[in-house]
Amino acid sequence: MTNNNFSFELLATDGNARAGIFHTPHGPILTPIFAPVGTQATVKSVTPAQLEELEASLVLANTYHLYLRPGAELVAEMGGLHRFMAWPKPILTDSGGFQVFSLNELRKIDEDGVTFKSHIDGSMHRFSPEISIGIQEKLGADIIMAFDECANPTDYEYNRLAMERTHRWLERCVKAKQRQDQALFGIVQGGIFADLRAESAGYVSSFDLPGYAIGGLSVGETKAEMHAMLEVTTPLLPAEKPRYLMGVGSPEDLVNGILRGIDIFDCVLPTRLARHGSAMTFTGRMNLLNAVYAQDPRPIDESCTCYACRTFSRAYIRHLLMAKEMLSGTLLSIHNIHVLERLVREARKAILSRKYAAFAKNFLSNYNGKAGN
Amino acid sequence: MTNNNFSFELLATDGNARAGIFHTPHGPILTPIFAPVGTQATVKSVTPAQLEELEASLVLANTYHLYLRPGAELVAEMGGLHRFMAWPKPILTDSGGFQVFSLNELRKIDEDGVTFKSHIDGSMHRFSPEISIGIQEKLGADIIMAFDECANPTDYEYNRLAMERTHRWLERCVKAKQRQDQALFGIVQGGIFADLRAESAGYVSSFDLPGYAIGGLSVGETKAEMHAMLEVTTPLLPAEKPRYLMGVGSPEDLVNGILRGIDIFDCVLPTRLARHGSAMTFTGRMNLLNAVYAQDPRPIDESCTCYACRTFSRAYIRHLLMAKEMLSGTLLSIHNIHVLERLVREARKAILSRKYAAFAKNFLSNYNGKAGN
Repeated sequence: MTNNNFSFELLATDGNARAGIFHTPHGPILTPIFAPVGTQATVKSVTPAQLEELEASLVLANTYHLYLRPGAELVAEMGGLHRFMAWPKPILTDSGGFQVFSLNELRKIDEDGVTFKSHIDGSMHRFSPEISIGIQEKLGADIIMAFDECANPTDYEYNRLAMERTHRWLERCVKAKQRQDQALFGIVQGGIFADLRAESAGYVSSFDLPGYAIGGLSVGETKAEMHAMLEVTTPLLPAEKPRYLMGVGSPEDLVNGILRGIDIFDCVLPTRLARHGSAMTFTGRMNLLNAVYAQDPRPIDESCTCYACRTFSRAYIRHLLMAKEMLSGTLLSIHNIHVLERLVREARKAILSRKYAAFAKNFLSNYNGKAGN
Repeated sequence: MTNNNFSFELLATDGNARAGIFHTPHGPILTPIFAPVGTQATVKSVTPAQLEELEASLVLANTYHLYLRPGAELVAEMGGLHRFMAWPKPILTDSGGFQVFSLNELRKIDEDGVTFKSHIDGSMHRFSPEISIGIQEKLGADIIMAFDECANPTDYEYNRLAMERTHRWLERCVKAKQRQDQALFGIVQGGIFADLRAESAGYVSSFDLPGYAIGGLSVGETKAEMHAMLEVTTPLLPAEKPRYLMGVGSPEDLVNGILRGIDIFDCVLPTRLARHGSAMTFTGRMNLLNAVYAQDPRPIDESCTCYACRTFSRAYIRHLLMAKEMLSGTLLSIHNIHVLERLVREARKAILSRKYAAFAKNFLSNYNGKAGN
């Protein structure tokens, strides 16, 4: 499974925090990194040119959504996902597993895979490890994910069964994979149970893969539980490979994840919050719909250098939100993605100068996370 | 009324077509020009940075909408419209008249002005010539418009009364105006009646204003009627002042308007069509939702150099439209505005080289306007 198209340079460690470079066929990913999510092959309301200006590198796209619309064959005919969505830098696709398992009454699981109903037109479809890998090979992302079963994180018995099935499915994914220009990451499952996480980390890392992910977190468990699971898992993953914490993206979760050895994050949070009028900052969140901003001439964050903060007042952005103007989503998405990219850049710098513990402590003591995820 | 902040250089005439430069406190407007509309102080789904890349100069904003939300006082407190919406180039505000008269059952007209109900919250408000000018002075656009009465264009008696009232209101607007860094344009009315248009052009141009507008067209009359009214009106307006045809913006209307001596146009058409999935071209319109584009790897228009056409396929834009992704509106708005800005630039070039008649003939013979406005 070793693949010359991919390599991970570990440049520095500081406690468990790591700074590195993951080399891909579409360029390097400087870690730690935050990947904005382009569910339907577009990071909502932001152009690729704006994303480049934000110094984003890795972008995530969703296999489930693209399989249903416009279809993986069409994306392949159009030259693959990079060309289709005009993102020249690295792309990661998930396996579709998380979305399919989230369909609840619309899906039926068996040992071979999952049968599910499309949320778009109710048509019946089937995903299996082989089908998911086949779709992801057509989409053509740099990093593709093993097809896994995501369980309710607090049910021990179900988590054991789901983890064991995830392991069997990983073996099938590894066998199914054909393209040499894609890196398959395996996924550690096990809910909030340390013994399951340890067992899963051991099994998954027995495959020589170019990277490893931790799935099934940030789905309802407490922060303490998430941290405990990271502390159990990351020491059991090979140090010389990147580690990806799936679906996590609040500023405090990034800082805490990096502290526990995570290299890659993704989340819809910055763009979703943007569409609801919420701005991320290094100290918490601001709801720009709040009347206190109606006559506020200051930028969202006076220390921020993003296009929105260089150009517009809080009063203007609030006006756009009140008037339901699309530009509000664009400006707040630009700002929120900038905040997370800036955060991981500053974290990387702190790790490289061996000051990450102080950086994290300082950040977390100033951060008011009361608004939650 | 002569104002040193504004001057119009007529560089060339070719038949009735004109190329010039209208100098304003926020820079020159090269005419003929198309002004994108930012109804609520934002050209929908497009950032000012993207508008600058499109080489737009003049942008229009709506007094009625901004008066109701966020309010003219707030815009003034935020440094005026240029700073509020971050548009450093010229801005034009309409008088609010057109919107107020469009409210139908929600408004009541008298000799002094109009009482109307807000479409947002039903609250009662009043516009008059003095109030409209006062609001426009607070907003701070470079070009402001006289408060006029827009009548159904086919009712002769109503048009006579509305025109006469528009003339009395123009006198009040001229008296009410105080700021020296704003250019007040008078508006010719008269529906589809040549005698009324001639009378109105004569009266309005008896005021020494920095520019003149033609209102009440593109509101339901035929193309032939619109052309006839332009042919009656423009020869009666002073040659040394810019002429603005309000609310007109389809490619064929621009070409025909320029042919009849118009210098300035504005319209919501490019951004409205964009939100409905329609792309403008030099030969007609394309509905990108059409299934024929599902697997089409070509750009919207292979001769177009806009960001959307340089970067994305028809298949991708159709995918965004099918998936109701906001980026579709942004990309199609960028493309459509680019088409109109390119069209007026090419028209200007043709006028400067005294080849406009051939340019217009060639354009109109290739253009399929069947889709209508």
